[in-house]
Amino acid sequence: MLNTEKLLSKFNPLTAEVSGAPTVKRHLHDLRGCFADAAAFEKAAAAGNPLLYQVAVVEPANGDGDLHYGVGRLMPGKIGDEYFMTKGHLHSWRAAAEFYFGLTGEGVMLLEDEATGESHMVPLEPNGVVYVPGDTAHRTMNTGKTPLTYIGVYPAKAGHDYGAIAKNNFRCLVLERGGKLAMIERK
Amino acid sequence: MLNTEKLLSKFNPLTAEVSGAPTVKRHLHDLRGCFADAAAFEKAAAAGNPLLYQVAVVEPANGDGDLHYGVGRLMPGKIGDEYFMTKGHLHSWRAAAEFYFGLTGEGVMLLEDEATGESHMVPLEPNGVVYVPGDTAHRTMNTGKTPLTYIGVYPAKAGHDYGAIAKNNFRCLVLERGGKLAMIERK
Repeated sequence: MLNTEKLLSKFNPLTAEVSGAPTVKRHLHDLRGCFADAAAFEKAAAAGNPLLYQVAVVEPANGDGDLHYGVGRLMPGKIGDEYFMTKGHLHSWRAAAEFYFGLTGEGVMLLEDEATGESHMVPLEPNGVVYVPGDTAHRTMNTGKTPLTYIGVYPAKAGHDYGAIAKNNFRCLVLERGGKLAMIERK
Repeated sequence: MLNTEKLLSKFNPLTAEVSGAPTVKRHLHDLRGCFADAAAFEKAAAAGNPLLYQVAVVEPANGDGDLHYGVGRLMPGKIGDEYFMTKGHLHSWRAAAEFYFGLTGEGVMLLEDEATGESHMVPLEPNGVVYVPGDTAHRTMNTGKTPLTYIGVYPAKAGHDYGAIAKNNFRCLVLERGGKLAMIERK
């Protein structure tokens, strides 16, 4: 059996902190290439390098049947008409799925089938659960005015692959059009 | 990609209901053999057969890397000095772990290593997360005065094995001793 410290963790749903767990932080400059409006990005990046999101990761064990979870916090804001977002990733083990549980704030997830490009925009809200199937690129966006926090649970052996998205980005983008949320194809 | 209905689910953290998901219900009579105080059990069972707990189960897909989750609601109460509990189970695929996320109420989980019998009592509370490693029998108890609700996330291929526990029960029991919570060895 694991020791007691690994059997229990406590998260803060507002700050996304987990006692004793490492936290990954991504700032605006880390997201270069993700936003469609390059001029708006460069203007914002010249003005500063604010924290966009952070994820605390809990990894009790690493066997075939083990699970990990992360607690994320994505700040509100926009670059041009596009909402603050995570880099997005595929799982290195493509079959690995993931559940996202919304904790606070309002957001959406963009899901893209790696093989077909089929895309879905799914709300991420408190008491709502988004299923990310295997073989599906996924990115989170904060569409509200307060921090968006959420939990993601995935197989320990999933792994994170950022390479494909860094190269080609997602096929679609999510933005505000006339005061409404819209998913459109990238030009 | 899955259809939209499978990509999103919404749960009620108080009732443990999930729109469109099947719910398993266990009543007092289903728990015969679980409680140590057989006389107290038979007295309660003669008086009625109340609902002890229910679990709504969400199963979007069933591949190797897929995940399922359940939302449980365990009522408060005691049989003798022992708290209302779930039957408890091992996973049929023994390597499969599970995360439990406390939503409302106060409870504990009893974890027992199948091979060694090593047992741990771990609190299950809001914003607390219990990790159930593989090869570990697990049972939930409501130690408070309100319903205990929680989410469990596990590999789709975990499966549920109730047989070993129905035969031998857990090595330890959790009860109230002098107003305090205690884990003791079964006689």
